[in-house]
Amino acid sequence: MDDVVPGSVGTSAGFSLRLGQTIFSCASLLFMSLGVEFYSYTSFCFLVTIMGLAIPWSFTLALVDGYSVLVKCPVRKRGLLLIIVLGDWALSTLTLAAASSTASVVDLLLHNDGSFCPPKFCSRYQVSAAMAFLSWFLSMASCLFNLWLLPSL
Amino acid sequence: MDDVVPGSVGTSAGFSLRLGQTIFSCASLLFMSLGVEFYSYTSFCFLVTIMGLAIPWSFTLALVDGYSVLVKCPVRKRGLLLIIVLGDWALSTLTLAAASSTASVVDLLLHNDGSFCPPKFCSRYQVSAAMAFLSWFLSMASCLFNLWLLPSL
Repeated sequence: MDDVVPGSVGTSAGFSLRLGQTIFSCASLLFMSLGVEFYSYTSFCFLVTIMGLAIPWSFTLALVDGYSVLVKCPVRKRGLLLIIVLGDWALSTLTLAAASSTASVVDLLLHNDGSFCPPKFCSRYQVSAAMAFLSWFLSMASCLFNLWLLPSL
Repeated sequence: MDDVVPGSVGTSAGFSLRLGQTIFSCASLLFMSLGVEFYSYTSFCFLVTIMGLAIPWSFTLALVDGYSVLVKCPVRKRGLLLIIVLGDWALSTLTLAAASSTASVVDLLLHNDGSFCPPKFCSRYQVSAAMAFLSWFLSMASCLFNLWLLPSL
């Protein structure tokens, strides 16, 4: 197979996508968990859990992609690609659910009862939700590119 | 094309999927909007908006599928199928986001400050979120079956 889909596993665009996912997931996790009381809201705990799953997944695949680019030998196994597509799909779905839960809870805290959310905390929650949305977007792109590659194997 | 993917456009399984989507979306919309104050929460308004988009989409495609099954002449145009896949994908993403926002807000209202949510209302919100999740599941299934059919055209 020589017609490589840009953005799929083992290309430099795929490596950039994975790196972006790792960075945004880490940023979301850090903004949510460092110095902020996140454990009193279910959806914030959900976001932290999902980001804790997404970071090792994206980081491992970033390593695989970087290695494939360096040795110029992309992964072309159907079973492996299927696992990657399924994992990406599950994680991107969960990331979207967590990001939209967080965003809606932050919105509720901001507009319905301001007393529950000091401005310093609320802006951090908002940044965390935005980072999670960006991470979802990149993860969905990875999933689509790999799905595109799948029938040709 | 004789090898029809069950669940894609123009099959009886596809008709059942569309019918299920329409029913669950209607149930979600009715549980959310009839006799309950939904407009004071952003995510509930979002759910109502998305369900208002999803119902005509699913209903139209249910009519198309039913007609195709009756006249035994399934739709096999690449451009049309692409539009259906993209629309399904966009609507299922939005439905998931709306359902998880609603679920997280209901959870917050139930557990953090019970005074804001009379039990009668809260259970209706919960049923509405559950129906939206079911509608998302069927919509995602339709999208995947049609996507599976796409490369063979």
